[in-house]
Amino acid sequence: MSATPSVVSAAPADPVDILRTLIRCPSVTPAEGGALAYLDAVLSNAGFATHRVTLTGPDTPDVENLYARFGTRGPNLCFAGHTDVVPPGDAAHWRFPPFEGAIHEGVIYGRGAVDMKGGVAAFIAAGLDFAGAHGHDPDHAELPGSISFLLTGDEEGPAINGTEKLLRWLADRDERIDHCVLGEPTSRATLGDMVKIGRRGSLSGTLTVHGRQGHVGYPHLAENPIPGMVKLLAALKAEPLDGGNAHFQASNLEIVSVDVGNPAFNVIPAEARARFNIRFNDLWTPDTLAAEIERRLRAAAGNEVRFTLAFEARSSDSFLTAPGEFVDLVVEAIAAATGRRPELSTTGGTSDARFIKDHCPVVEFGLVGTSMHAVDESTPVGEVAALTRVYAGVIARYFALFGR
Amino acid sequence: MSATPSVVSAAPADPVDILRTLIRCPSVTPAEGGALAYLDAVLSNAGFATHRVTLTGPDTPDVENLYARFGTRGPNLCFAGHTDVVPPGDAAHWRFPPFEGAIHEGVIYGRGAVDMKGGVAAFIAAGLDFAGAHGHDPDHAELPGSISFLLTGDEEGPAINGTEKLLRWLADRDERIDHCVLGEPTSRATLGDMVKIGRRGSLSGTLTVHGRQGHVGYPHLAENPIPGMVKLLAALKAEPLDGGNAHFQASNLEIVSVDVGNPAFNVIPAEARARFNIRFNDLWTPDTLAAEIERRLRAAAGNEVRFTLAFEARSSDSFLTAPGEFVDLVVEAIAAATGRRPELSTTGGTSDARFIKDHCPVVEFGLVGTSMHAVDESTPVGEVAALTRVYAGVIARYFALFGR
Repeated sequence: MSATPSVVSAAPADPVDILRTLIRCPSVTPAEGGALAYLDAVLSNAGFATHRVTLTGPDTPDVENLYARFGTRGPNLCFAGHTDVVPPGDAAHWRFPPFEGAIHEGVIYGRGAVDMKGGVAAFIAAGLDFAGAHGHDPDHAELPGSISFLLTGDEEGPAINGTEKLLRWLADRDERIDHCVLGEPTSRATLGDMVKIGRRGSLSGTLTVHGRQGHVGYPHLAENPIPGMVKLLAALKAEPLDGGNAHFQASNLEIVSVDVGNPAFNVIPAEARARFNIRFNDLWTPDTLAAEIERRLRAAAGNEVRFTLAFEARSSDSFLTAPGEFVDLVVEAIAAATGRRPELSTTGGTSDARFIKDHCPVVEFGLVGTSMHAVDESTPVGEVAALTRVYAGVIARYFALFGR
Repeated sequence: MSATPSVVSAAPADPVDILRTLIRCPSVTPAEGGALAYLDAVLSNAGFATHRVTLTGPDTPDVENLYARFGTRGPNLCFAGHTDVVPPGDAAHWRFPPFEGAIHEGVIYGRGAVDMKGGVAAFIAAGLDFAGAHGHDPDHAELPGSISFLLTGDEEGPAINGTEKLLRWLADRDERIDHCVLGEPTSRATLGDMVKIGRRGSLSGTLTVHGRQGHVGYPHLAENPIPGMVKLLAALKAEPLDGGNAHFQASNLEIVSVDVGNPAFNVIPAEARARFNIRFNDLWTPDTLAAEIERRLRAAAGNEVRFTLAFEARSSDSFLTAPGEFVDLVVEAIAAATGRRPELSTTGGTSDARFIKDHCPVVEFGLVGTSMHAVDESTPVGEVAALTRVYAGVIARYFALFGR
């Protein structure tokens, strides 16, 4: 028998090759590192219309982003993610170099392997296969809709010149996204055990207690702000904010810093500052929560403790993509590819889904996150392949349900 | 009538002239500024045996000091003080230049006017008068004892190369001091209203609460040290240390700083540190007090809060010069010169008396301290003259009681 050479566009895309190439791009936030240029080239070759978008703003680095779409008509299923990574720390602590993409005993090592070049590689591979299957039709007349990729280089950084502005850039061009899958590493212990259908909101604030400076030998002539601060912080933590509900854990307040900065032992300071962050569920909005915090502080302060309270401008609201057809099809695709029915969760930190949910329903699913941001970040090669099957299953089920 | 020219040594010394000369020496700690050189010259001329002593130590500036004695036999009544001053801050904020010694409407202005070049000028003037009255006797055979001056340039600074080491220097030379008057500004509202017969002790410590760093979105994987710190600090302040006694106010603990230094809102910190200082009476020693603090922290921490506690090496014990003949004669001298019977107090900060009390009984008396360390530090000229009469009265009464 003689081997028939396969047509390039018909061979399945290899997500592991894509992942290794991405890991070799040193895209430590906000550096592009060649990652988006590589994806731009691959996707252009496959027939995607691509847009490199450099987003800028005051007091924050310029960031490169990429939007690519295959097909011109709706519905438009978008896969979103980021190619920037957190710094590797001391490379000498890594088992394999962090930007090499070494594979050892079936596991691929490198910064970004799970957060989230692994997810990006998987959905790019699934997208290339989808494009390959429809590539013979230059007008895309037979396409059931479009698929697109929204890729940013500013997720691990300030997240100002990334997804949020890129979505506005799309909206300004009347570019519509109908549903979105974000490829963050949502799996907890095994691929497929958790999908995120929402996220808690985040509200940060600074509490300042005012006193009057003086000498420790004459406390009656001064007013130490620290006991007042201790009292207010105790009051903030005294009662839970709520008990959670069907889709969300209880809201939680963490005091992340208390600072006075007094270098002397014989001086009573004039002021004490504490900073806190609240991860909250959909029983609150940033406004109702801020009002509750202020109410608790006023009650504890009475007429004795003088304080001021300021909230950070960049709070984010909670959101929930209510279980329904879209969530169900993602769950089915996960179950088909992994044999697991994922928990529908809203736990953990924030992600760029907080921006996407203002434009369309969004669900997050990706690799096991255990090693993210850590030394020896890594993922089994087999799970990257399985994740590619999940995303391919999402595409197939999506167009079966919503396609033209 | 023709005026008889007075003999120089018989004219009363003018404490205001001495004070203005001292203010014009810019002796901002640890600089000598010409102040000790000037006093050395004046006292040598008057027949005092003087010793300029430069004291040194690692990690602390070299400091000049002066010891001067008139007479060779005991008892030796010593007046102690310092010529260094705290910085003036922005001279533009002063009504008169801080190192000029301007006199306006009977008030002399300048850095150190009350803390404590005023006290130094007054006891130097009283000492010169005493020497002048006995100057005709070259062997000092008729002297009822000796008077001496112990002057340091390191009271406002670290107080390491000053009084403490100078006293050891004296002891190494078998130079004995029998009683001491320290000229710190002890008067509260009017000259003569308060004399200090002791001081509270001072103990400083640092409390560190240990946690485990993590992401605010996953508090169950971290251990925030701040709520534990809040609990321990509340416990430190919950109960008074004591109720004071006949000679002392209640002991008092001030938390002077709390610091975490976490710049991020999304990170739970690993550690929180608090620093505190206790001013304590003679119901405690530094050791018993440290044990009580540790006991309170352990009780509040239980098995939940992990902490470490460290005390500063340079604590000072409380002391009391018990009312008796010496205290009484100082009180009588004050009453005779000012018409006021002073309160016997142990309040306020520490002073170099904490070192002197290990060598002999010490009482502190001086000007009204209200303007010390402040802009426009000043004292009425009349109070400098009255203070000189108090010190002269102390000398007279001392030798009447204890003299040979």
